[in-house]
Amino acid sequence: MVDAYIINTLFMIFSMTLIILMVPGFAMLEAGIVRTKNVTSVLTVNVMIYVIASIAFILIGYNIAFGGIKIDTMSPLAFVMFQMAFVGKSINIMSGGVGERAKIFPLTLFTLIMGALIYPIMVNISWGSDIFKDTLLDINMHDLAGSTVIHSTGGWALLAAILIIGSRKGRYVNDQIKVIPASNIPLVTLGALLLWIGWFGFNGGSVGSIASKEAADTVALTIFNTNTAGLAGALSAGIFIYLRYKLFDITMILNGALGGLVAITAGADLFNTVDSLIIGGIGGVLVVIAVPLFDKIRIDDPVGALSVHLVNGVWGTLAVGLFASSDTITLLGQIKGITVIGALVFSISYVTIYTINKFMPFRAEDEAQLEGLDASECGIESYPEFRRTI
Amino acid sequence: MVDAYIINTLFMIFSMTLIILMVPGFAMLEAGIVRTKNVTSVLTVNVMIYVIASIAFILIGYNIAFGGIKIDTMSPLAFVMFQMAFVGKSINIMSGGVGERAKIFPLTLFTLIMGALIYPIMVNISWGSDIFKDTLLDINMHDLAGSTVIHSTGGWALLAAILIIGSRKGRYVNDQIKVIPASNIPLVTLGALLLWIGWFGFNGGSVGSIASKEAADTVALTIFNTNTAGLAGALSAGIFIYLRYKLFDITMILNGALGGLVAITAGADLFNTVDSLIIGGIGGVLVVIAVPLFDKIRIDDPVGALSVHLVNGVWGTLAVGLFASSDTITLLGQIKGITVIGALVFSISYVTIYTINKFMPFRAEDEAQLEGLDASECGIESYPEFRRTI
Amino acid sequence: MVDAYIINTLFMIFSMTLIILMVPGFAMLEAGIVRTKNVTSVLTVNVMIYVIASIAFILIGYNIAFGGIKIDTMSPLAFVMFQMAFVGKSINIMSGGVGERAKIFPLTLFTLIMGALIYPIMVNISWGSDIFKDTLLDINMHDLAGSTVIHSTGGWALLAAILIIGSRKGRYVNDQIKVIPASNIPLVTLGALLLWIGWFGFNGGSVGSIASKEAADTVALTIFNTNTAGLAGALSAGIFIYLRYKLFDITMILNGALGGLVAITAGADLFNTVDSLIIGGIGGVLVVIAVPLFDKIRIDDPVGALSVHLVNGVWGTLAVGLFASSDTITLLGQIKGITVIGALVFSISYVTIYTINKFMPFRAEDEAQLEGLDASECGIESYPEFRRTI
Repeated sequence: MVDAYIINTLFMIFSMTLIILMVPGFAMLEAGIVRTKNVTSVLTVNVMIYVIASIAFILIGYNIAFGGIKIDTMSPLAFVMFQMAFVGKSINIMSGGVGERAKIFPLTLFTLIMGALIYPIMVNISWGSDIFKDTLLDINMHDLAGSTVIHSTGGWALLAAILIIGSRKGRYVNDQIKVIPASNIPLVTLGALLLWIGWFGFNGGSVGSIASKEAADTVALTIFNTNTAGLAGALSAGIFIYLRYKLFDITMILNGALGGLVAITAGADLFNTVDSLIIGGIGGVLVVIAVPLFDKIRIDDPVGALSVHLVNGVWGTLAVGLFASSDTITLLGQIKGITVIGALVFSISYVTIYTINKFMPFRAEDEAQLEGLDASECGIESYPEFRRTI
Repeated sequence: MVDAYIINTLFMIFSMTLIILMVPGFAMLEAGIVRTKNVTSVLTVNVMIYVIASIAFILIGYNIAFGGIKIDTMSPLAFVMFQMAFVGKSINIMSGGVGERAKIFPLTLFTLIMGALIYPIMVNISWGSDIFKDTLLDINMHDLAGSTVIHSTGGWALLAAILIIGSRKGRYVNDQIKVIPASNIPLVTLGALLLWIGWFGFNGGSVGSIASKEAADTVALTIFNTNTAGLAGALSAGIFIYLRYKLFDITMILNGALGGLVAITAGADLFNTVDSLIIGGIGGVLVVIAVPLFDKIRIDDPVGALSVHLVNGVWGTLAVGLFASSDTITLLGQIKGITVIGALVFSISYVTIYTINKFMPFRAEDEAQLEGLDASECGIESYPEFRRTI
Repeated sequence: MVDAYIINTLFMIFSMTLIILMVPGFAMLEAGIVRTKNVTSVLTVNVMIYVIASIAFILIGYNIAFGGIKIDTMSPLAFVMFQMAFVGKSINIMSGGVGERAKIFPLTLFTLIMGALIYPIMVNISWGSDIFKDTLLDINMHDLAGSTVIHSTGGWALLAAILIIGSRKGRYVNDQIKVIPASNIPLVTLGALLLWIGWFGFNGGSVGSIASKEAADTVALTIFNTNTAGLAGALSAGIFIYLRYKLFDITMILNGALGGLVAITAGADLFNTVDSLIIGGIGGVLVVIAVPLFDKIRIDDPVGALSVHLVNGVWGTLAVGLFASSDTITLLGQIKGITVIGALVFSISYVTIYTINKFMPFRAEDEAQLEGLDASECGIESYPEFRRTI
């Protein structure tokens, strides 16, 4: 007879596989958004992040995050690999936002530190053991699959990175913002849809068990709400842009979907359908509003990662307090979680990136940026046979 | 211990995930087939269909389709989401066939009506409750996963749409048929293969349970037959074309595979391997024969959707009556099902599209078609950096 | 209650689905590596291999491989389909390595013979029944998921093919090696990552059962080690190239990952994490070393298949003897397995390809190679709208 241990192991392997489908998801999304002269370097960064963050996590980070916790509801290695699948995501968020000007080597160094230390510490504080009990870091936040722990974490690290690395050469000249169109819309679409599907494993698997009627219902509810918020985010972003420009902007529609997905991630196990539509719908609108705002303050983020992941990571964590408060979940507890994790990640990341930057500058030289990072960093053109207009 | 409820919930989540992989599947297939000047708009339509049809279905359509039916063999939301994953497919079929000239906004309106009403009514008649019992609509058709309910439904709606919207500007001039080559063969291949894999969830999940030895055997049989028919359709289409032109035509091979997959969808739970090879093989040949025939009668269908989905939807439903007749399954019953659903969908779709078209024309102006719909509808080029020949 | 039969059926369907995701994986990888003038023909070959090898295997090959073995731990058709999903892979390895000059028709003939006979015989000897007991072919090799049975088999067949078919026109002129860059790096990346994910099903499913605590642990260990070796192979290849050229070479990083994945395939169920890192890491370095060596001896292999699959297939099978020897597993037994399978596959493939080649030459004429095989074999350009530099 099949027991909980077996079915949970299979469920966790299934969920983990979906999350790892987000590796090509992020890679294709970013490769589609940046200019062709930077596509190879962006893909290289995506692959290196998966490689280095995962190794760092299984050798060091896991023990920091979950050390001493006994896993007996499933095969422990299935749990380790599920958690390992998370770690690269927060760094993908960061690397995407500094795309087209950050060099690969310092990014891999930061990846190592983020995967081995920074991210695992945030996990420990949020989901892990009790070593911070009764300290300032004893937070009591409901964050099912990481609106804060993954998405805001990646977003705060990105903000620190942008402040240090600066904007792309030529992006802001005088009072002008140079619009840089995505180079390959099919790749953007493919990537965003793979991320969307991967999210089912991300949030569904975070329920941690499917081995009872209640658990199965929670898993189904979580995945259903996850998808619903993605739908609502896409719809609200699409309507918002259409009303303004009478055009259908697929990059905004897809970013709206991702915003909705980030927003639902903290509490997908708690909401009903209408709440999920509202939370996701607000998520989509937040993306559309935030993207030009960051540009206005000269925060240059080619893929809109701050709008999607940081803004909606905060919003989604707040939404748990607003829509699903209970005896154990309070708006104040959520705000404390957002603040503690945000302050920690931002400050640690800032110091880390600043330090790396001192002896190994992140920022590619102006000429390398003009020529494209594929030439200077990789020596490999992304589409060598296609004649290009720029 | 793990019971049927739990394993069926996991099985349904797995199946649903595979079906949603068909969203990028359809998107990449169509993006690869149309000209680069229409790629962004085709991708936008695909994403909007998933978004709008799904929301319409979970808020309204599901109740029409399955209202009052108690789901107790699995988590109800897993069942709802599995069914939701179906709805966009029939509209994808329709939108693909009017690609390169249909505007996005009226398409989204039709999507809303199709997802909320038309498709759910067909489901109710075919798979749902007994409210039409002893009426003219009391059909008794075996259609496991929708050769008729999904594929013919999409096909009939498409036929209505083409009759109203017309062919692409410049496609038929005098007695000439302008051949328009697919713009990106890797995307066509990727899309078709994702659809193929998604079909395992589509047909396998439609068995509805894996929680007994018999059910597990039926699921395995269904997925095995599904794949086998796809193989046979690809092979027969490939041989047919090769014999005629001494060339290997991958778009026809892939459309042949899809034709075989559509054909097996009605009865994949009933056939043996040889029958599956025959049914799928005929499906592939039907595609190769039908594509030029539709062109001959000036039915302009850029992706071959009528040949793949309508022709083979009918063929597959007939095949159940021919290869697997029994006490409860008869050829006459299958024909009645095909006819009733076909007549209903075609007439309702025709009236709906005709009405929408009155106050919001589907057809893009000639100039917009010449320039490409990406410019007029989206304002976003699909590959802005690549120099193009046309 | 759910029993072993049911959960193993679901597990096998899940694993098989992941393996079939390797069909687009191989297709995208190869389409990205070859020049645009050969992309359609490479995609056609990939699809035809899946079609013909699978049909040959389910109609003929399966019985040769596993005839007489009673499957009672899961639904037999789930097992058949899982095994069917393997067969095309060994031929993909072969076809990729003769890309850009081998014609499609003779390749499909070889596919038929490989899928119906050659591969199934190797499976019988390695994993199947006892009909070779006490003969010279009575090998006792531990090869969980086919470092030898799949990957070396494909590699030896490829070596035979290259010796007969020769190198691409213009690749080696006088003492010069013409470097041919990959035409589409995003497709290369997408393909390699899909292969990586598909490997979880390949190796995990090869455990054959998840229906006990021990089995679930072995499945989790196998998938964990598989991924770990892929990580290590990517890292070691990346470091090796970086130290030499101060550049990040994503094609080598990805090939290194694939090399690590091939290397772990024989014994992923046996190793610990550190061993997996070492075995995979050596695999990555072997790829980087082997690629120029094959070029030095004028063995022209556009996708590096010999380095990835043959070299690491041998290495991975040896590694089982080195890292996991036991009462039943010995280095000598592993070497015997490598030798017997290698000698058989190479000689049978050589004779087969030589014979086909006599009455139907594999090698495309010089002019066809210059113009690209898409024109002569398929009549379909891969990217007809993009202006190209070559």
